[in-house]
Amino acid sequence: MKNFNMYEMIMKKRDGNTLQKEELQEAIDGYVDGSIPDYQISALLMAIFLNGLDQRETEDLTDIMLKSGDSISLDGIAGVKVDKHSTGGVGDKVSFIVSPIVTACGVKVPMLSGRALGHTGGTLDKLESIPGFNVFLKVDQFRTILEKCGMVISGQTDNIVPADKKLYALRDTTATVNSIPLITSSIMSKKLALGTDAIVLDVKTGSGAFLPDMKDGIELCKSMVNIGEKSGRKTLGLITNMDEPLGTAVGNSLEIIESIECLKGNGPEDLMTVTLALGACMLIAAGVEDDFGAAIVRLKKAVSSGKALDVFRDFIEAQGGDPNVCDNYFLFGNSNSEWELKAESSGYISYINAFEIGMCAIDIGAGRRKKEDMIDHTAGFIFHKRSGDKVKSGDTIITVRSSGKEDKKEVEKRLLNSIKITSAAPDKPELVYYFADKNGMWDWKEVSG
Amino acid sequence: MKNFNMYEMIMKKRDGNTLQKEELQEAIDGYVDGSIPDYQISALLMAIFLNGLDQRETEDLTDIMLKSGDSISLDGIAGVKVDKHSTGGVGDKVSFIVSPIVTACGVKVPMLSGRALGHTGGTLDKLESIPGFNVFLKVDQFRTILEKCGMVISGQTDNIVPADKKLYALRDTTATVNSIPLITSSIMSKKLALGTDAIVLDVKTGSGAFLPDMKDGIELCKSMVNIGEKSGRKTLGLITNMDEPLGTAVGNSLEIIESIECLKGNGPEDLMTVTLALGACMLIAAGVEDDFGAAIVRLKKAVSSGKALDVFRDFIEAQGGDPNVCDNYFLFGNSNSEWELKAESSGYISYINAFEIGMCAIDIGAGRRKKEDMIDHTAGFIFHKRSGDKVKSGDTIITVRSSGKEDKKEVEKRLLNSIKITSAAPDKPELVYYFADKNGMWDWKEVSG
Repeated sequence: MKNFNMYEMIMKKRDGNTLQKEELQEAIDGYVDGSIPDYQISALLMAIFLNGLDQRETEDLTDIMLKSGDSISLDGIAGVKVDKHSTGGVGDKVSFIVSPIVTACGVKVPMLSGRALGHTGGTLDKLESIPGFNVFLKVDQFRTILEKCGMVISGQTDNIVPADKKLYALRDTTATVNSIPLITSSIMSKKLALGTDAIVLDVKTGSGAFLPDMKDGIELCKSMVNIGEKSGRKTLGLITNMDEPLGTAVGNSLEIIESIECLKGNGPEDLMTVTLALGACMLIAAGVEDDFGAAIVRLKKAVSSGKALDVFRDFIEAQGGDPNVCDNYFLFGNSNSEWELKAESSGYISYINAFEIGMCAIDIGAGRRKKEDMIDHTAGFIFHKRSGDKVKSGDTIITVRSSGKEDKKEVEKRLLNSIKITSAAPDKPELVYYFADKNGMWDWKEVSG
Repeated sequence: MKNFNMYEMIMKKRDGNTLQKEELQEAIDGYVDGSIPDYQISALLMAIFLNGLDQRETEDLTDIMLKSGDSISLDGIAGVKVDKHSTGGVGDKVSFIVSPIVTACGVKVPMLSGRALGHTGGTLDKLESIPGFNVFLKVDQFRTILEKCGMVISGQTDNIVPADKKLYALRDTTATVNSIPLITSSIMSKKLALGTDAIVLDVKTGSGAFLPDMKDGIELCKSMVNIGEKSGRKTLGLITNMDEPLGTAVGNSLEIIESIECLKGNGPEDLMTVTLALGACMLIAAGVEDDFGAAIVRLKKAVSSGKALDVFRDFIEAQGGDPNVCDNYFLFGNSNSEWELKAESSGYISYINAFEIGMCAIDIGAGRRKKEDMIDHTAGFIFHKRSGDKVKSGDTIITVRSSGKEDKKEVEKRLLNSIKITSAAPDKPELVYYFADKNGMWDWKEVSG
């Protein structure tokens, strides 16, 4: 672009004007190659945070970021390939359950995943709790495992969307993470870098989500579906409840164990409801089903037949892990410390704050405070009582498995404060709110029948 | 401050909340000592630009910046000391005229000034057009010259408000200069670092001002007067017209020559009107007059008696310059090139755009494009016709003195475009709009009688 001027670009966005694609290109290219300093980019990011990007600018930014690095082609691999992405939550282990189930239904499921972020868990950290499991695959290995097992999960190589790596690190220190257009371009550039046929997005809403407001979740979901479709990928989205932890386990190995239990047919209702809804979207996005009810029946059959668990075993083995963990949970190892959180009053549990539980998980060693911190893969929470359950004072609500370095009194206090006990039973919360495709957004209950 | 977190501070201002003084202190201290990176400060500056600072935050920021470095005490120097500050304009040479006049009326006038900025001229650059003139004085010299001559003008030493130097450089590259609270704290921290009894502020408004909108000028003026008064300094402000260049000369030595002419009683009406209004405010702020009319009579006498010119001669000599320039303008040297801009149509000049004239002054060598650029002190414009004057096609409007490196056709075109010629005579513009003190703001016409 002739006469590009970073100062004028910042000024334009500061004053609420629209940026040209050429300007975004110069800024991102210059930031990645080091010719534009981070302090100018952070001023631009704050201006974008406060004044927004319109849909065209967001599309352009996504495309520029995507093209800042390599893509992973899946050409030549037979079958329909569907990716699934969650915006992150507490106890969200859906990927480990839905991927083998959908694979067992004849669809290929490749994923590029990330580490724990803030109060939420990370797919790669959870997989690394499996002895021997390798989360960093070369492109060749990634393709080979996908062909062989039908599913594969890897961390991103350095040269997938390098612009996002630099921008995300800057956003993370300048309070510019929670911007809908910036989240959209960050997620979708990485999704588009993987050559799948379709993408299914799980946008979380509620206390444990990065964007707790439903309004923001809806906007983000629409924005991402739009960009996926514009880029020629079939893209579906769900808005799901992340007000409370999903399932009964929070923590790395504990969540893998719960996922295996789900594949054995013993999954808790809330977790299976969200898993089946996302799985149905994946089958529909893949074009192998066109009715949600039929899709769910097919998914359930993949569990009851044992096929989904077989896929998961193969997948673990292919990525270097020990598949025997599926039968012997002791292989995950023991935590240093174990104690119980007991109810201090009687009544009904009416709310468990997902954000607070996520923060407590960091306290007991299951997450990181700083990037350099080590994770204790065995640490976590097992919920014996959940929202809607009756409790008596003294009943165990949670078994805490920890690294033993926490201030137990403090964690106990914070956990008790995050669990509400009331005299009346709470209403059962909705788990899946909305479904979105290129034509718009609908109540999940209506479309799923 | 315990548990200071720069990220949370950025987030607070991003979300429109109010910052504590301790937070501002940590951020500024950390930026000056290098422990907080520029990219976090630039995100904060953009959040401040877009969400503002309230009066208390602005006061706190000013105080923190002031205390980031040294102050210059004027204790022990007899007499009342008054500083005058202009927010900058095109052809604004008022300092060189008003200082000797006010000094001749028995008030001491010390000033710390700056270089040319953007399209506006700089006090130090203009003074350096005087052969031998030294604009960088040590504190001792500054005090000695003030005592001896009654006036002194110097650049700031490195350790006057070092926080402003770093912040300004960052604002200058991140499009966060034109923020009223940031301008307020930048100007007022420097004014307060000089221990005068009173401060008179000339806030420019119109095309050639940094804040062209009257509304912004009013807000800036009120904000600065408030902070001056809260810091125990008598502070008065005027809002004056900077829609058109002030006086008939634009350019460094040409403006000094015009200033000398004013001191000889030959000043153009617009320039003298603004000069006398500011001078009257200075006498009133100093407490030596309490009526604007009487103050103006006294100022005029200081010119007609020749006393003001004598002060200016002494001042030039005390700062190492050649006082003979007052009698022999050839001592300023000749420009490399001289040409005339002629009217292309007949009628009345109805508007001369100050911003455009300032930009053209840079083109002909009188200003800088980059900080490192050399200034040609002899370059500039002499206006033979001004707004309200009748012109015939072919009449000379401007004599251009230049370094000879300009694209003459381009400059000619830009100059002609910045001068409007209409068939009807324009209304005479107001030159001084408002007067502000600690009690509020009034029409200048009303208070000056």
